[in-house]
Amino acid sequence: MKEVAIGIDIGGTYSKLGIVDREGNCLTESSISTRAHKEFDTFLKAIIEEIEQLSHPLGDLIQVKGIGIGAPNANYFSGNIEEAPNLNWKGIVPIVKKFKEHYNLPTYLTNDANAAAIGEKIYGAAKNLDDFIVITLGTGLGSGFYANGNLIYGFNGFAGELGHIIVKRNGRKGTAGLRGTLESYVSATGMKRTIFELMADSLEDSPLREIPYIHMTSKKIYEAAKNGDKLALEAFEITGKYLGEALAISISHTNPKAIFLFGGLAKSGDFIIKPTKKYMEQNLLEIYKNKVEILPSGLSEANAAVLGASALVWSEAN
Amino acid sequence: MKEVAIGIDIGGTYSKLGIVDREGNCLTESSISTRAHKEFDTFLKAIIEEIEQLSHPLGDLIQVKGIGIGAPNANYFSGNIEEAPNLNWKGIVPIVKKFKEHYNLPTYLTNDANAAAIGEKIYGAAKNLDDFIVITLGTGLGSGFYANGNLIYGFNGFAGELGHIIVKRNGRKGTAGLRGTLESYVSATGMKRTIFELMADSLEDSPLREIPYIHMTSKKIYEAAKNGDKLALEAFEITGKYLGEALAISISHTNPKAIFLFGGLAKSGDFIIKPTKKYMEQNLLEIYKNKVEILPSGLSEANAAVLGASALVWSEAN
Repeated sequence: MKEVAIGIDIGGTYSKLGIVDREGNCLTESSISTRAHKEFDTFLKAIIEEIEQLSHPLGDLIQVKGIGIGAPNANYFSGNIEEAPNLNWKGIVPIVKKFKEHYNLPTYLTNDANAAAIGEKIYGAAKNLDDFIVITLGTGLGSGFYANGNLIYGFNGFAGELGHIIVKRNGRKGTAGLRGTLESYVSATGMKRTIFELMADSLEDSPLREIPYIHMTSKKIYEAAKNGDKLALEAFEITGKYLGEALAISISHTNPKAIFLFGGLAKSGDFIIKPTKKYMEQNLLEIYKNKVEILPSGLSEANAAVLGASALVWSEAN
Repeated sequence: MKEVAIGIDIGGTYSKLGIVDREGNCLTESSISTRAHKEFDTFLKAIIEEIEQLSHPLGDLIQVKGIGIGAPNANYFSGNIEEAPNLNWKGIVPIVKKFKEHYNLPTYLTNDANAAAIGEKIYGAAKNLDDFIVITLGTGLGSGFYANGNLIYGFNGFAGELGHIIVKRNGRKGTAGLRGTLESYVSATGMKRTIFELMADSLEDSPLREIPYIHMTSKKIYEAAKNGDKLALEAFEITGKYLGEALAISISHTNPKAIFLFGGLAKSGDFIIKPTKKYMEQNLLEIYKNKVEILPSGLSEANAAVLGASALVWSEAN
């Protein structure tokens, strides 16, 4: 009988779930619509049905050790999703309590960036590291910090909100009301805003000028950069500058061995890693220089979010 | 018989030492010149003599459980003082090893800001806190971060160098080569530079204009502020602005319950705490607002450095 964990990643549009063993192999996985469920209780019913459908064929081959849930605005300490702007369920959703009413299993909740960090520690490239940072580059920018071998949760469970530090006074408007936040420059959305700023500022020709704002993506900017598009390359340089300067600040806080980049934008490889590294090093104190690696995540991109969520179960069991 | 720890704080000019019990009472203390000793070995001899003189009268009343040392450029992991610019002893000084050759006692080394944080945790106002930050405001700016009940050391032992984050592009030259570092604005030296900048910029009359640069101190600026001096008050406002903005960044990293200000400048009380709090709150994400306290250190100022160093012994014994 194989010990497994159920990992559930709740996103604004879809929620993914999977059954994962201790080594990080996803035995089976699935997804359901999040948005279709206006009420949390109907969502819960649907996800429980899905869990049954996934686990039934495995029968006695598996022994489920627990459930790990990654979600936006998730509070690890309370087990609640709190006032998530991207979900239909307003107010406080006591998701851990609700799951425990159905399953007699240890159930844990954390936000998606923390889940990514735990996944990196349990299954990924940070297995042997006690001090590292994971930066998730998606629609926004999330982060998870490990120090002394433990994830930093903080007093209220809200540690690691690097996306919301202010990197430019009176800069771009951020989603949470503050201006000039890191994520308003460094994220898929941030890159899109940067390329529009560059198109406004420069007269340089570019195929990106044919794409309307709502259809622009960081992937299209990446494709243009691969073809040597000057504006796209400059957008990566600017994004890397903001990220590198911010990482220099984070290094002065927790002195990590490595920083892992995770998510869509991280797939741009050296286009994002090279400028980030350059500006990071320029802003580091001598004692840190050339000691901190910037690496792509070691988790399989396809089901990374489910892996991260499931890793909570093994992490808590240690 | 009372269990005690020996605390040694090595400064550029003087080194202080004391015998401290578990409750943070300093039973006896003393100091010797650091600078007078060109070689570490003669310093070691002198400090050991001093320890004997302090402990001899207490005889059988005490049982020494260990030695804690706070020093600049101290590495907790290696037990070495490494390339300290303010000490006569160049290169690597294996101070823990040297002490252990004389005493069969657990001996620990950390930098002065970390020692202050450990002191706050063991004896001071952070006894019941797992997540907090200590900022030391002296000639420079040091910091110690607690998360999950443990001091963050980082991979190389150099976590918590908040004084060296860059807060202003192409700003003031810092002591470690970088420009625009936090400590070049927020420290006794930083305030002095700020008041000279203000005197150059403004035509406002002030008694501070009678004081030459080398004799200006943050204490004199504090005295002027108490008398309503406009330039002095503005200097505190500016200092608090830089500190508050930086603390908002630190809160986004570790989500502490409280931030303690320690050292000379912290004695200015509300002159520094009020603007710091104001600008910190302005730069915080909603989830952190009005949740983080800024407080003066709970350690007795007179022998705080010795207390901090001695606290290492109890911290490690836990």
